[in-house]
Amino acid sequence: MKDEGQNLLVIGAPEHDADAYHLSGFLAPDPVICLRVDGKKYLAVSSLEYGRASKEAPVDELLSYEELELIKLARELKSGAKGYAAAISNLLDRLGTNGSPIVVPAGMAVIYADALRERGLEITPDRQLFDGRRRAKTDEEVSHIEKTQRAIEAACAHAVEVLRESEFGEDNVLQWRGETLTSEILRGEIDVELLRRGCMADGTITAGGSQGADPHNRGSGPLKAEESIILDIFPMDLSTRYYSDMTRTFVKGEPSPELRKIYDAVLESQEAALGMIRAGVNGRDVHGKVSDVLHEHGYKTDKHDSKDGKPLTEGFFHGTGHGVGLELHEAPRVSTADEELIPGDVVSVEPGVYDPKVGGVRIEDLVVVTEDGCRNLTGFPKEFVV
Amino acid sequence: MKDEGQNLLVIGAPEHDADAYHLSGFLAPDPVICLRVDGKKYLAVSSLEYGRASKEAPVDELLSYEELELIKLARELKSGAKGYAAAISNLLDRLGTNGSPIVVPAGMAVIYADALRERGLEITPDRQLFDGRRRAKTDEEVSHIEKTQRAIEAACAHAVEVLRESEFGEDNVLQWRGETLTSEILRGEIDVELLRRGCMADGTITAGGSQGADPHNRGSGPLKAEESIILDIFPMDLSTRYYSDMTRTFVKGEPSPELRKIYDAVLESQEAALGMIRAGVNGRDVHGKVSDVLHEHGYKTDKHDSKDGKPLTEGFFHGTGHGVGLELHEAPRVSTADEELIPGDVVSVEPGVYDPKVGGVRIEDLVVVTEDGCRNLTGFPKEFVV
Repeated sequence: MKDEGQNLLVIGAPEHDADAYHLSGFLAPDPVICLRVDGKKYLAVSSLEYGRASKEAPVDELLSYEELELIKLARELKSGAKGYAAAISNLLDRLGTNGSPIVVPAGMAVIYADALRERGLEITPDRQLFDGRRRAKTDEEVSHIEKTQRAIEAACAHAVEVLRESEFGEDNVLQWRGETLTSEILRGEIDVELLRRGCMADGTITAGGSQGADPHNRGSGPLKAEESIILDIFPMDLSTRYYSDMTRTFVKGEPSPELRKIYDAVLESQEAALGMIRAGVNGRDVHGKVSDVLHEHGYKTDKHDSKDGKPLTEGFFHGTGHGVGLELHEAPRVSTADEELIPGDVVSVEPGVYDPKVGGVRIEDLVVVTEDGCRNLTGFPKEFVV
Repeated sequence: MKDEGQNLLVIGAPEHDADAYHLSGFLAPDPVICLRVDGKKYLAVSSLEYGRASKEAPVDELLSYEELELIKLARELKSGAKGYAAAISNLLDRLGTNGSPIVVPAGMAVIYADALRERGLEITPDRQLFDGRRRAKTDEEVSHIEKTQRAIEAACAHAVEVLRESEFGEDNVLQWRGETLTSEILRGEIDVELLRRGCMADGTITAGGSQGADPHNRGSGPLKAEESIILDIFPMDLSTRYYSDMTRTFVKGEPSPELRKIYDAVLESQEAALGMIRAGVNGRDVHGKVSDVLHEHGYKTDKHDSKDGKPLTEGFFHGTGHGVGLELHEAPRVSTADEELIPGDVVSVEPGVYDPKVGGVRIEDLVVVTEDGCRNLTGFPKEFVV
């Protein structure tokens, strides 16, 4: 993961490209060029961004697209990408480092990569290096994630209030403020609460009953009492651009003994995982422990029951967790993959058990890994019955 | 722009990759592989998506990652990207077309491109071809854009109500419901209205006074009477994933004569552009006409006043418009670029004039290009004074 000696290049719009934001430290809606050469950072921005960048960007040298003659080069070469490549190549000449290999993100657009290579630059995509750079979060990054997490908790508390206020209707369908309570209405209530706190949600899960037994189902239609309702909330803060991620499962009224048993098993497996997480532990072992606990409780898991690597559709059949930061899903994984946790990793811990006949239960906290354990960033209680 | 004869390949998550969604017709949060070979469409999805895809995906053949042995290959080759490349190569073998050149989007991740080329595939990134495929919108696509546009108009109407309800405070600072009305509050009011209509906003502009004279400034702090306030609203509908885009400029109270003059000139230039737009017209000529009208009114424009191609910071110094669809900014541009409009293009028409001492004015409608003109998708009135 050590990358100090290498030269790095990212071309991307920092608001939508985590590597561009992380390397440059400058947030902008349009593409920037960020280079790190011999340990120094160079940032090139369009004239529209130059003024703000000169105040805000924590780089060693700021350049404008104009002085790089980016637009002129693109016009001459009849290609935006070739214009970028020429401008970058000229800059590297000036820095006296043209010819040294440069590492780029795995996701660099092929059109830039081709244009850079055409000019003789030796570029190597390296997902692990760029992922690794973003893994150990600074205190400031953790505080950004916690800010998003506080918004999630406020939104979840509001959703719980909605469930509490709801009444049993015909066939156990929940009624709220004179209307049938649907997944869509509950999702809207959550997402508006998030937005009021500056967070943007895309895909909030409010899935009840058999829908909740499919982890990819976001939920639609009426919600019912006595069925589990999964709320998985994972917005991004619009100002910091950091995500957080939390899941809670609720039931309005009395859960069946089968459902209660699932809830208790999932909670126990999560507590086992949380108790294991610390720097140096392998995510694979955490995931294995979760699987073992659920297996002991009689639930199927990929580890114990999958045949020929074919994933199950019942029981526990997804990863235990993933990194969270400028992207919702980033390194490391806490899964069957061999990945050792390091101090500063922010990972979700989200076991779940799914049974189309009984329902789904998932409980997810977010923790920051420390030398001797982890700090749970999630302050929301784990109550099943509302 | 004709692409019928070519083989196409996209790897991407349709919810975040317009080409993946457009080629596959299937919306999913996780990466899919979509191939068009000899005019037939093949879609490969993970087992989690397979059931839904078999009902929804409008393709000739649906495959699962399992039957492509994607995970097994990735494990053997110790690389996700190499796993994808091997699976795609095997599939092309089966289809008897391995060896034919394949066109991919300009933005394909370099790590996939490298892995595909390593296996001997001849892939050519072609931005124009994929952009061209998405240009002429179908009636269904236009109706999606109109749905987003209706949400924008409801949100803008709400913002106008807020401005109308506001009162003059000290130093002309607007007061709303007992509080100072800030750009942040007004943006929140707009974004919540959008969300209530299923649309997600990221970057809504609510910029007043000198802030509105910088088109990149989203606006912050107190809004004032007698200053222009630019509202630029461009959300995406969370279910259809189509954007729309509208800008209106308002003033609470009496505008200065200079500001009124700017507003009238911008409106006149927009009307001139709207009157010109039809299939076969070059975007460069539309942009030129806007520049001419504003120049005649005494405002600086890049066309008439820029020196050495250096963009101005005052007057009219951005493009006249851009395509809108699955991306907020897509082909074609209506600018200095030589791009001819075609029937079905959906483009914004958004001239503006900016003067740090007087303020900024921008007026933006969205139109669909037809054989003999254009249909304006924007129904919101253009009133300056509220």
